[in-house]
Amino acid sequence: MSKFLSKKYEGLIPYTPGEQPRDNVFIKLNTNESPFPPSQKAVEACEAVLKRVNLYSDPDCRELKKAVAASYGVPEKCIVCSNGSDEVLSWAFTAFCDEGRAGIFPDVTYGFYPVFAAQSGVPYKVVPLKDDLTMDIDRMKAEEGTLFIANPNAPTGIALGAAVIEDVVRSRPDRVVVVDEAYVDFGAESVVPLISKYDNLLVTQTFSKSRSMAGARLGLGLGSEALIRDLETIRCSINPYNVGSMAQAMGIGALLDCEYTSGNIREIIENRAYASSALKALGFEMTDSSANFLFVRHPDVGGEEIYRKLREKNVLVRHFSQPERIKEYNRITVGSIDQMKALIKALAEIV
Amino acid sequence: MSKFLSKKYEGLIPYTPGEQPRDNVFIKLNTNESPFPPSQKAVEACEAVLKRVNLYSDPDCRELKKAVAASYGVPEKCIVCSNGSDEVLSWAFTAFCDEGRAGIFPDVTYGFYPVFAAQSGVPYKVVPLKDDLTMDIDRMKAEEGTLFIANPNAPTGIALGAAVIEDVVRSRPDRVVVVDEAYVDFGAESVVPLISKYDNLLVTQTFSKSRSMAGARLGLGLGSEALIRDLETIRCSINPYNVGSMAQAMGIGALLDCEYTSGNIREIIENRAYASSALKALGFEMTDSSANFLFVRHPDVGGEEIYRKLREKNVLVRHFSQPERIKEYNRITVGSIDQMKALIKALAEIV
Repeated sequence: MSKFLSKKYEGLIPYTPGEQPRDNVFIKLNTNESPFPPSQKAVEACEAVLKRVNLYSDPDCRELKKAVAASYGVPEKCIVCSNGSDEVLSWAFTAFCDEGRAGIFPDVTYGFYPVFAAQSGVPYKVVPLKDDLTMDIDRMKAEEGTLFIANPNAPTGIALGAAVIEDVVRSRPDRVVVVDEAYVDFGAESVVPLISKYDNLLVTQTFSKSRSMAGARLGLGLGSEALIRDLETIRCSINPYNVGSMAQAMGIGALLDCEYTSGNIREIIENRAYASSALKALGFEMTDSSANFLFVRHPDVGGEEIYRKLREKNVLVRHFSQPERIKEYNRITVGSIDQMKALIKALAEIV
Repeated sequence: MSKFLSKKYEGLIPYTPGEQPRDNVFIKLNTNESPFPPSQKAVEACEAVLKRVNLYSDPDCRELKKAVAASYGVPEKCIVCSNGSDEVLSWAFTAFCDEGRAGIFPDVTYGFYPVFAAQSGVPYKVVPLKDDLTMDIDRMKAEEGTLFIANPNAPTGIALGAAVIEDVVRSRPDRVVVVDEAYVDFGAESVVPLISKYDNLLVTQTFSKSRSMAGARLGLGLGSEALIRDLETIRCSINPYNVGSMAQAMGIGALLDCEYTSGNIREIIENRAYASSALKALGFEMTDSSANFLFVRHPDVGGEEIYRKLREKNVLVRHFSQPERIKEYNRITVGSIDQMKALIKALAEIV
């Protein structure tokens, strides 16, 4: 840090996103992207606005919110649009946590949560997953603070039922519960239908995964009108034009093409089943994933070694050395069937 | 605010951006956009990446930084890329201001500065412009704190010379000086060449104005390696994929097409001269603008009345009711020659 940086950021360690190599050498299974291109309707919608980007994007995302409202069956006032879902998660930490209300999340979950808390200058507390890597929901419920629940959780892929989450939300009406549904489309149950019932529920979603728009940057916050108004206050105090015209147009196009999205989701789920079986045949153990990734370890070969040897074979997966208890695992994105076959072939030479 | 919003944001009033009507009824001279479409090279560069946006954008903006480095003659390590320049300004408030170092800026300047400060939870102090609406640079220099200098200033359009700014930067090596050069291309002198000389100088620029990319969202921070490293820490603790693939591609395309940009700048400067003369002939008074807008008042008709009557004639300009001393003014974007003629025609019927 320079001598000019505020002391409040002494020791702030930014999040390290998965590697994004610029060449095409690698089979990229490290950042849970979709192997399918974006919807043709999204591409065309973007092309149609390109010549008008001399004008600002709509800071209120009105057309996009209309499309989201129609697609999700929620009022427009219950939607905030963001530059990827990291942005809305960051606002949630800053808006709904403070000295008396720490951010509460599992020890093994999206690694960005503690960084959001540190950047926002708010305290946080981790609740260890159980030994089987499922969430200890009773301990989470007992904590004073603002809950952050990734559902399905990352990097385990394990999902909670909507009824379990509803019980948490109902049991603590004085505290916000944030449900991060980045991966929900691949097999978990969304709690978006509950936002009309509970004023303390905020759901975040992304267009980066099932909708093949990671590079376009579009996320959503869905919640009660009061929570959304709070987030809009934060948004418009940092960057009111946070979502560009291209991302707004693409989002609308993608929402119009739900058949394309559901077809892609079906294919990922099939490929996940294929990869799980093939990995098990190679001796791998894994959690029960409802996401577009698998979280796997091998009884005989270490996690870091598998990561490294796959990399030598031009297959990129994600390895987390922290916390200690997950260091024998690798998180592997479920991609196209060809990518899965190449992965299995490479692993068969390693284990 | 909801009962859940952190008390630290009690009273936070977000910035109100200029109106962005979705229909095309208005001659839009209220948010200082370019009247020219983006460069064809920018459009083509964007089209070329659209089918690959299923992959994340480069979080390090490597290719874009190379293009910026070549165009500005600065090392890549001295560049941070942002989702519009509001974002990098927001980081600067949070990174370089705190209890002991308030944000210091004029009373009449970009209206977002006090909002950034409030959102970041840092103090700020305003230094009144002189009676002629020029910056009181001696008083600014004397203030303890982090300076924010818009050059040219908004909404006055009045520019400071680079030598004056260098003197400020040199005189207070222990404090960061942020120079917001959103409008610099229309007639002011950039201090970017000074970043190699002073470790306390941060310059922000935008692709929204001279490069016709307001809707694409792209901004820059340029400064010493140490300052940029601090801003990268903040950026990657909030949203490491803050600049999408489309904006990165368009930025590179626009930088390759500098002839198109300079031609557009020349035309705006000509149209500014035309509009100034025609407005003066109608009795308007104005500041000496080096930006793509004019800041004008009429001795006989109030600022709010002119704003309202222009709106009735489908011409949108920007009127600020605060601070009191500028309420008789309107800020009018310099657009195409046809837009300027329509403006003058409408005003001739009002004054």
